Amino acid sequence: MRSAESIREIIEAGLGKVSCDLRLENIRLVNVFSSEVYPSVIHIKDGRIVSVDPDVRLPSRRVVDGQGCYALPGLIDTHVHFESTMLAPEAVAEVIVPHGTTTMCVDLMEIANVAGVAGLKALLQSRHRLPYRILIEVSSRVPTAPGLETTGAVLGAAEVMEIMAWEESVSLGELDPSKILFPKDEYLHKIADTLARRKIVNGHAIGRLGQELNVYASAGISDDHECVEVEELLARLRVGIKVLVREGSTERNLDRLLSGVLERGLPFDNLMFCTDDKHATEIREEGHINYNVNRAMALGVPPMEALKMATLHAARHFRLEDELGSLTPGRLADIILSRELTDIRPEVVYFEGREVARQGRLLEPCPVGPYPDWMKKTFMRETPVTAASFAAPSRSTAGVNSRVRVIGLIPEQIINTCEEAELAVRNGETGPEIAAAPERDILKLAVVERYGKNGNVGVGFVRGFGLKAGALAYSMSHDHHNIVCVGVDEADMAVAVNRIFAMQGGLTVARAGRIEAEMRLPLGGLMSEGDAESVMAELDVMNAAAAALGCPLPAPFMTLSFISLPTVPELGLTDMGLVDVLEHKLIPVESR
Amino acid sequence: MRSAESIREIIEAGLGKVSCDLRLENIRLVNVFSSEVYPSVIHIKDGRIVSVDPDVRLPSRRVVDGQGCYALPGLIDTHVHFESTMLAPEAVAEVIVPHGTTTMCVDLMEIANVAGVAGLKALLQSRHRLPYRILIEVSSRVPTAPGLETTGAVLGAAEVMEIMAWEESVSLGELDPSKILFPKDEYLHKIADTLARRKIVNGHAIGRLGQELNVYASAGISDDHECVEVEELLARLRVGIKVLVREGSTERNLDRLLSGVLERGLPFDNLMFCTDDKHATEIREEGHINYNVNRAMALGVPPMEALKMATLHAARHFRLEDELGSLTPGRLADIILSRELTDIRPEVVYFEGREVARQGRLLEPCPVGPYPDWMKKTFMRETPVTAASFAAPSRSTAGVNSRVRVIGLIPEQIINTCEEAELAVRNGETGPEIAAAPERDILKLAVVERYGKNGNVGVGFVRGFGLKAGALAYSMSHDHHNIVCVGVDEADMAVAVNRIFAMQGGLTVARAGRIEAEMRLPLGGLMSEGDAESVMAELDVMNAAAAALGCPLPAPFMTLSFISLPTVPELGLTDMGLVDVLEHKLIPVESR
Repeated sequence: MRSAESIREIIEAGLGKVSCDLRLENIRLVNVFSSEVYPSVIHIKDGRIVSVDPDVRLPSRRVVDGQGCYALPGLIDTHVHFESTMLAPEAVAEVIVPHGTTTMCVDLMEIANVAGVAGLKALLQSRHRLPYRILIEVSSRVPTAPGLETTGAVLGAAEVMEIMAWEESVSLGELDPSKILFPKDEYLHKIADTLARRKIVNGHAIGRLGQELNVYASAGISDDHECVEVEELLARLRVGIKVLVREGSTERNLDRLLSGVLERGLPFDNLMFCTDDKHATEIREEGHINYNVNRAMALGVPPMEALKMATLHAARHFRLEDELGSLTPGRLADIILSRELTDIRPEVVYFEGREVARQGRLLEPCPVGPYPDWMKKTFMRETPVTAASFAAPSRSTAGVNSRVRVIGLIPEQIINTCEEAELAVRNGETGPEIAAAPERDILKLAVVERYGKNGNVGVGFVRGFGLKAGALAYSMSHDHHNIVCVGVDEADMAVAVNRIFAMQGGLTVARAGRIEAEMRLPLGGLMSEGDAESVMAELDVMNAAAAALGCPLPAPFMTLSFISLPTVPELGLTDMGLVDVLEHKLIPVESR
Repeated sequence: MRSAESIREIIEAGLGKVSCDLRLENIRLVNVFSSEVYPSVIHIKDGRIVSVDPDVRLPSRRVVDGQGCYALPGLIDTHVHFESTMLAPEAVAEVIVPHGTTTMCVDLMEIANVAGVAGLKALLQSRHRLPYRILIEVSSRVPTAPGLETTGAVLGAAEVMEIMAWEESVSLGELDPSKILFPKDEYLHKIADTLARRKIVNGHAIGRLGQELNVYASAGISDDHECVEVEELLARLRVGIKVLVREGSTERNLDRLLSGVLERGLPFDNLMFCTDDKHATEIREEGHINYNVNRAMALGVPPMEALKMATLHAARHFRLEDELGSLTPGRLADIILSRELTDIRPEVVYFEGREVARQGRLLEPCPVGPYPDWMKKTFMRETPVTAASFAAPSRSTAGVNSRVRVIGLIPEQIINTCEEAELAVRNGETGPEIAAAPERDILKLAVVERYGKNGNVGVGFVRGFGLKAGALAYSMSHDHHNIVCVGVDEADMAVAVNRIFAMQGGLTVARAGRIEAEMRLPLGGLMSEGDAESVMAELDVMNAAAAALGCPLPAPFMTLSFISLPTVPELGLTDMGLVDVLEHKLIPVESR
């Protein structure tokens, strides 16, 4: 927030009456406001840009030679749940800032589902000492699927608006279509209150088209990050919804969407970038929003348009273009220096005028925590689960086959298909139960309630994990974050899940009755207290352990965390059972 | 402002659960959000768009055949002082709405200078019954030139913020560079408070370039409507200031700016349209914002870009794109039907879903007033002016020439030049005084204080009015709105000015000691209580009377109202004397 005094300070620096903090010379200014690139000089004072006039040299405490690099605005991720990195916000800095991302629009619905507004505040306590900016997309739906799942906490309308009043809160977080198509006053009030504050409402219009999409837009939804096909993208533009082109770990939509945009000659002015959910390892290896930009340019998007998507369009969307998104006077001095324009790899990154990263590394570590103890004690269960906890009861009788709904995994997408399969029915401890068919890659999938509220275990079937033995479990399962587990063997599933209870959150791989690998995520069962390097190393071990069980997926745990989502079509699975997402209701595992 | 209940109503109409008010069929939708034109159907309920899906037919109380017309969003004038029309807001409707303008972003600084916050509120009392939308650019500078002029009222920071809190207030009105380059806390507080409300600050960067422009931008200024040359336009984009391309009565900047934009291949995304000040007669004859759009297209601007400048870009700029600027669900149903896309002449205009104009005429008259009596009593002076009141004292002696600064009028521009001329010095009542030189078109220009505060008369010289005899006077002289008078003969100047006092505001033409023509503007001395037709007819008579005195200007009274502005370079004239605008100080008429 700019005060009159701070505005005066910038003016007086520009008039040469007080000294600037930094003069950045010999740069090629990428001016996304005028859509030009030209040699210039940037003056900075108190974290803001004072002047970008090429012909001006003001007194400055420090002068830096940009060595002819391109200077471009810090990049903006317009929608991200950074819990998916498994890193605390401080550790996230290590992976994203060296890639030039200086603003993260975060929806903290994960921690909010676990620990409510207290969890959200605790996770944000470090935000003013980070080398990047957190803007808050205030979670609209905690729980996401009320009546269909058990969560640790609820964010009511009053709590949402308490957070919305914060300066860094820019929007109401991804409101899914069920809240509009089956309108509920609670959500309509959250929308109205958000709009009254001149803030926007983020969407989550997965799979919707036609009149449903019109109705959704009519409620005041401003964007969507769930497009997979260019036809969906165009349908959103036609109803006045902007599209956040997503390239995350399991949801890789960029190539398809932007190829389609180029083929059809669609305009770029209502497009931006996001990652949504991306593992730290992949960020380290391929980049963050700079990867989106570079990939877009490689596909043929003009460099200026790709950069505007990552900067000005995003700032404008969140109504912050006077603060962010261009290297022009008065804006916060988030600056990337890059040797190439068509391959953005930051030499140096400035955040609010401070040099914070150079050649791929943060200049100063950003220590994690301390976090309160209660954030690390969020798992409770009266009695351990057993193999029998994972039984899938059948209405049929032993010895015959049952026709069963199976969640069909689609590689690189968050959506799934509702498949059907004939599975054998056998006699179990309490009656007839459906058996998995690992030889056809049809495995048991389970969600175990972890908040000590009811001890529910929801059981279903999934195809696509490719395990030949054992089980994987993870305490991040969107959006309720109970424990999700996939396995060939119910006894191993019990071992994997019980170990997560014992650890108070994390990931496990079990085989033949014992834990093969484990990783702790003490912060709400979602995030580590470690630094990025150690978390990535631990995750590499976990992924290798999953691969050793036969799983061919590149990010099996992230896939596991999403596969059961009760708001992403076609099927979901919660602690309460199988969910028909589009109909927003619980359905039996057996289809007849 | 959308309430939860009103959002529900739109959703339920879209779901077909309640009837729509209007289904507009057989139209070609100009979708400025997706940049496409295609056949479609628009459904409307409670003044908002429910659906634009071509394949949907929802129950509706009324169905209208659009006869294949193009349907485009209502046009937005991003900066206008509608006092310049001489019409009250109700009468303004008659001239602008049939041309398709449905939103006027108005800065009411004229009435505020005369009558303060009470005048502003009185003028806005009709706003909820108008067939167009008023958005308020809250006047930042009343007075505009403190210390250099006498005004009727002051809008302090508290009053500005009282109005800013209104829902329809969208920005802090045109803040001129002197307030930034010579920073004053009052204005910096107004800026900071406006930004804290997530509203924007309009600029007025006339003639500024280079580092001054950088400093100006650094204070948080978002736009400028004072560009004359494309170099100025580009300089503004480079510092992150958007440009409102103005085409008014005396300031015709469009051709030059947009030709330059096309020649240089500059992007359109930071450009919009405004009229600033345009007389009713010219609006009637050539159009309003539709004229800007049509002219832009004629110059070669792609139709979709020209339309986006007049709609989406403007709505986005004022952070209202969820409400205005595109024909997409949830937005207010301001719709123009036009037979041609490249020549916008509305067949029908809808405002918030109501048909308000057809084939160039309002469907229902919009009665003016009543306005309070105190708004019609704003002129006060102890004793009448005389010919001697308009003496220009010389430091020289009678019989020699004096070198004098002359305001040089530039046709079709608001700016002027500081010229110099040798003028004769003669003996006057109180000593040596400078004589005008009508044979060289150098006339007396005077500003007479009218609020009864000090009785000041400021006298200077002007070239360009071409009068051969008599005098013209007008009670609108920006921005203080004292009485401005130009004349060949001082006695006629006195007659012209005294008559305006007697009428309590208006326009006069005097010749040979008598009034030749007069027109009353009782509302603060700025606006008529008549309808548009009668006001235009009266003004035609006044213009003819001015022409009969030899004045070649097409809009002599509007020119007169601007020529003395103390904030528009190079010279101004107020009741206190001649003003060096860029130096922001009073200077002598004699240059040495």
